[in-house]
Amino acid sequence: MIFEVLTLFPEIIESYCAVSIMKRATENGVFSVNAINPRDYTLDKHKKVDDTPYGGGAGMVLAVQPYVDAYESIEKSENSITVMLSPQGQPLDENKVTELSKYDQIIMLCGHYEGFDERIREIIKPVEISIGDFVLTGGELPALCVIDAVSRKLDGTLGKIESAREDSFSDGLLEYPHYTKPRVYRGLKVPDVLLNGNHKEINEFRFNEQLKRTQKRRPDLYEKYLNSKADL
Amino acid sequence: MIFEVLTLFPEIIESYCAVSIMKRATENGVFSVNAINPRDYTLDKHKKVDDTPYGGGAGMVLAVQPYVDAYESIEKSENSITVMLSPQGQPLDENKVTELSKYDQIIMLCGHYEGFDERIREIIKPVEISIGDFVLTGGELPALCVIDAVSRKLDGTLGKIESAREDSFSDGLLEYPHYTKPRVYRGLKVPDVLLNGNHKEINEFRFNEQLKRTQKRRPDLYEKYLNSKADL
Repeated sequence: MIFEVLTLFPEIIESYCAVSIMKRATENGVFSVNAINPRDYTLDKHKKVDDTPYGGGAGMVLAVQPYVDAYESIEKSENSITVMLSPQGQPLDENKVTELSKYDQIIMLCGHYEGFDERIREIIKPVEISIGDFVLTGGELPALCVIDAVSRKLDGTLGKIESAREDSFSDGLLEYPHYTKPRVYRGLKVPDVLLNGNHKEINEFRFNEQLKRTQKRRPDLYEKYLNSKADL
Repeated sequence: MIFEVLTLFPEIIESYCAVSIMKRATENGVFSVNAINPRDYTLDKHKKVDDTPYGGGAGMVLAVQPYVDAYESIEKSENSITVMLSPQGQPLDENKVTELSKYDQIIMLCGHYEGFDERIREIIKPVEISIGDFVLTGGELPALCVIDAVSRKLDGTLGKIESAREDSFSDGLLEYPHYTKPRVYRGLKVPDVLLNGNHKEINEFRFNEQLKRTQKRRPDLYEKYLNSKADL
């Protein structure tokens, strides 16, 4: 898998991928990340990548030429998808993450400060993805969320142990509570059932906690879960 | 405003805040960011911050002592809120961002790889916030989303021009399309209405595009918008 990120701030992408699991996985060749700066492709003699909006209004607009030329400089693999990070996109969720993980190449367009000239959308025709209904300075954090979440699905990114834990999200419920040493901390005890070694009881306890917690905190997910069970 | 971030990877937080608008705003004293590593507070002689889960299962669990001691080392301001970044939290949206921007201090707890020992929740009692129904390696990207989105609401983070543009999100609709030079690119023209200097027509065009785009891409937001208008 290769992630190609068009961004005016390649250092944001590069520094995140130089730490922790991302670092290990890129070093092991599980995936690679390539940040491309549209500023390197602008034909403007002052290296500008934006300009004032037609029709007036505050702010600047990212110009079509540098983005399209930077995009076209990328060698496309056969199994490639292009994503624009934008509050106008479809919300990212775990299903979308799984879908994205099937591609060999994910090209991402990040804005910064400003909007894109609409013709960037018309020419490149990206899929648009949003990570939520809030406003950020740029598409870099959403792009990193895509890289982080998608790379977790790739063989080799997570160790065996981390990988197994992952499964606890896959049933559509929130996680059960976790406990580790010490048994008592400031008078707060680990629930007895987790100490008795009876795996049937432990599994029941955990599953009930998942149900209770999901019902209380995320009634929308709980509803979905019940419906999916009813369908079976 | 001060953001205090408990994280095993302070460099992720620091490197993002050293770039672009975040850099300018922290240099100008609009807000500051302080990353605290629970590893510096562990009493374990091998500097461990996690251990195996009671009741068995794969993965490791973040231990209560290092997190609680690191948390208690922070001097709390009178107008402080503590947030845990977790897929179990309430979804972040622009209303929550505005609410958070009223505090003087936002303390954030980031997990990494693993779950928190449940007693961290019981002792610290954080508000839990999620940025979406997808799984990430840690709470660092969500914490950065909070810092980025909240800091945009603070006086002085955005320049006047950037700030004014912000308003186009505040009515609950998606943005209208933007265009900048050149007038024609690969045969694609800027809409005539944006070139005629008639501000009434330009505003009408833009508002209609906002409505059309929101209805098509985010029927949920469109519905909300219509209801809010009906209430008036």
